[in-house]
Amino acid sequence: MNIAKPAVPPLDPQLIEKFRAIVGAKYAVTDQTDIEPYVTEERDLFHGRSPLVLRPASTAEVAAICKLASEHGIALVPQGGNTGLVGGQTPHNGEVVVSLRRMDKIREVDAPSNTMTCEAGVVLQVAQQRAADADRLFPLSLGAEGSCTIGGNLSTNAGGTAALAYGVAREMALGLEVVLADGRVLNLLSKLKKDNTGYDLRNLFIGAEGTLGIITAATLKLFPKPRAIETAFVGLASPAQALKLLSIAQVEAAGTLTSFELLSEVAVDFSIRHGIDIRDPLEAKHRWYVLMELSSPRDDARDTLETILGKGLDHGIIDDAAIAANLSQRQAFWKLRDEMSAAQKPEGGSIKHDISVPVAAVPDFIAEADAAVVKLIPGARPVPFGHLGDGNLHYNVSQPVGGNAADFLARWHEVNAVVFEIVLRMGGSISAEHGIGVLKRDELPEVKDKVAIALMRQIKAMLDPLGIMNPGKVL
Amino acid sequence: MNIAKPAVPPLDPQLIEKFRAIVGAKYAVTDQTDIEPYVTEERDLFHGRSPLVLRPASTAEVAAICKLASEHGIALVPQGGNTGLVGGQTPHNGEVVVSLRRMDKIREVDAPSNTMTCEAGVVLQVAQQRAADADRLFPLSLGAEGSCTIGGNLSTNAGGTAALAYGVAREMALGLEVVLADGRVLNLLSKLKKDNTGYDLRNLFIGAEGTLGIITAATLKLFPKPRAIETAFVGLASPAQALKLLSIAQVEAAGTLTSFELLSEVAVDFSIRHGIDIRDPLEAKHRWYVLMELSSPRDDARDTLETILGKGLDHGIIDDAAIAANLSQRQAFWKLRDEMSAAQKPEGGSIKHDISVPVAAVPDFIAEADAAVVKLIPGARPVPFGHLGDGNLHYNVSQPVGGNAADFLARWHEVNAVVFEIVLRMGGSISAEHGIGVLKRDELPEVKDKVAIALMRQIKAMLDPLGIMNPGKVL
Repeated sequence: MNIAKPAVPPLDPQLIEKFRAIVGAKYAVTDQTDIEPYVTEERDLFHGRSPLVLRPASTAEVAAICKLASEHGIALVPQGGNTGLVGGQTPHNGEVVVSLRRMDKIREVDAPSNTMTCEAGVVLQVAQQRAADADRLFPLSLGAEGSCTIGGNLSTNAGGTAALAYGVAREMALGLEVVLADGRVLNLLSKLKKDNTGYDLRNLFIGAEGTLGIITAATLKLFPKPRAIETAFVGLASPAQALKLLSIAQVEAAGTLTSFELLSEVAVDFSIRHGIDIRDPLEAKHRWYVLMELSSPRDDARDTLETILGKGLDHGIIDDAAIAANLSQRQAFWKLRDEMSAAQKPEGGSIKHDISVPVAAVPDFIAEADAAVVKLIPGARPVPFGHLGDGNLHYNVSQPVGGNAADFLARWHEVNAVVFEIVLRMGGSISAEHGIGVLKRDELPEVKDKVAIALMRQIKAMLDPLGIMNPGKVL
Repeated sequence: MNIAKPAVPPLDPQLIEKFRAIVGAKYAVTDQTDIEPYVTEERDLFHGRSPLVLRPASTAEVAAICKLASEHGIALVPQGGNTGLVGGQTPHNGEVVVSLRRMDKIREVDAPSNTMTCEAGVVLQVAQQRAADADRLFPLSLGAEGSCTIGGNLSTNAGGTAALAYGVAREMALGLEVVLADGRVLNLLSKLKKDNTGYDLRNLFIGAEGTLGIITAATLKLFPKPRAIETAFVGLASPAQALKLLSIAQVEAAGTLTSFELLSEVAVDFSIRHGIDIRDPLEAKHRWYVLMELSSPRDDARDTLETILGKGLDHGIIDDAAIAANLSQRQAFWKLRDEMSAAQKPEGGSIKHDISVPVAAVPDFIAEADAAVVKLIPGARPVPFGHLGDGNLHYNVSQPVGGNAADFLARWHEVNAVVFEIVLRMGGSISAEHGIGVLKRDELPEVKDKVAIALMRQIKAMLDPLGIMNPGKVL
């Protein structure tokens, strides 16, 4: 999967001077050592090269950068926290990186209107905290929240663990400010829940991975802060049983059911084996687990959770369950879940999929994918886990025990192919929440409606006729 | 506001034959008496003229119509239940009407996945009922639900009384099927909650009022059916007090707060005076009222409602309140609310606005707008009511008592101007949920971001280069 490192392409020194004049000398980075963190990502899966990293501090500076880049046909790669998993934020071909991290102002918190306006470079965790300080909840939550940014969250339409109740990033943005390829500023900032004045332009840029323009700010929805959070760790026999439990939980808890994560035994085992300070919350082993969380404005979350688990036990759906007795137990449950990606590393090569299927199809998907993968590579170990409530699974496959990692990873596309065939047959998506980037770019035309692909190309040509906005990503 | 009736423009008989061959003779309407219901709307505000109404029964027929229309440069006006309030569904210039009402199949209800796939012509109430039959809720709800259609709801991005908890129509559509101007079928039907494979094309067509393509089907989100619904009618002194009550209700009820309607005394008076069988739920008169509803999956809605009202009384926020004791009382509360538009008619001319402002700005908006309107037309009677929880008011103004309706209505644009000035100054929208149509088309360029308008024109030109899709609407 490694993309070869090209030599750093040269950039006209006079042009570098002009870019430097926009952001100030200190924020136009040309030293390759200083550039390194912007062109690599934590898993070392993608390497890029860039002659110049620009760190603008304002929308006006971003606009000036785009205008200048347009005039000279210079390609730009916008970047937030550099935590993306599909290579979307990496300058693969010597593009100029535009890092939004210095645009980190929270322009306004309007608690009575339940909105917050953040610049693109605000770190997700900072946004969450600022909402909490105003006695509100900003519900977007994902593993990288300590370093990913609001601009990146929106550009990739991030999902995460609370999407079940609050929706994906797209659904949390009321308004947007975007700098277009030619430097024009599109001001769609708005606190309005209802606004039917013309075409919805906002959603075009959300999830476009920086290929249509650079998101510089957003007005985000806030929610009442829950008063009671209750978390359970449940052991059960199968994904089908988990689906039945989900159905009960949705009836009983409705909008207060904020997470419903399905975890396979092997995923839990890996976490316990390789994580630090991680213990199994249940006494015995189970084939499958559910991590379920309720967040209620009232004191009733515990009651509701007990009702759900009681019904699950009565109907023979679940085999065992533990309710977190306090905050530290709750955090321990979540740590087990959060370590799952990292815990696959010590087990050797891992071929990852971020797929979704209709919720009701998840059990069949897992059964078929497991069989197909093991048939293709005997001994391969599927490690499925993810957001059952959204039909979104991280269907990862670890190499056979004792096998060679490189040999296994060489079959990445073969494994993808058998998994994606099942996904598509079930009406699913090959990229549920991570996006396309470069990782899945070449597969996109195979899996997407042909008319949709044609429209996407038309839109790209319309908004970025020179092809300077994050070229080679998505399309 | 009446648009002059042009003569019915002729259409080449050979072309009519070709259109007829697509839908069948019975469903190509050319008799002007039969056409009349398609070219007028209930308030008699807009009159159109058309030589031909086509009633296709399938996506393939719609595609063939668009292809033929493209080849001959024939303009089309898509139409659902013909209940729109801004003239978007009316053929003002002799266009061919494409009525989607025969496409009324519910293709699938997938209760375990909480989705339902409806064709465009399914009547909203039928969709609601079908969801209820599957023990689910399809929450979109508005006055015209007995005749408006899913296609129209999505094309206009309808709002309604449950948007507070469930969002507007846009947020209820997971997937979409659209016929483009040239007859290509864009298949975005999907049951997926998470799908990050490329640009979001779906939202471009939702709210575009048929100017970019014809929505022929949609996959809609379903929700658990609430077990307990509790409704209160509250008397209080001011919009500011109502805002405080909303804040309490959002903390206590969170996602179970499904409606929060603010009603002015005059709006309530008109309903009681002119509606049939409508009584004041409270003993004394109040300056303002709130109609509040909670819908909970558990039995706790009554408790929660009482807690909210108790806090409202304790803090001196509310003056009186009645809780509906049974279904018929609940329906009576809602009837009072639902009659408000109709009840303005016997009071003479009414100049209507469908605006939104940030929720916290609603009290200031009402105060400023009332003052400005009465200064402009002494004796004019503002009749504000609407969805406070969404910052969306139907800010209607009835003529002075004893005045002349025509004289009053002649000042429609003047009244618009003073109201819109306040809306825009507060960061609001001049069309919150009804759309642009022809009614607000000429105002749009004045109130919308210039770059946004330019992009809208580019998108229109890209998707409809011949300008045959609902021409003269929106842009």
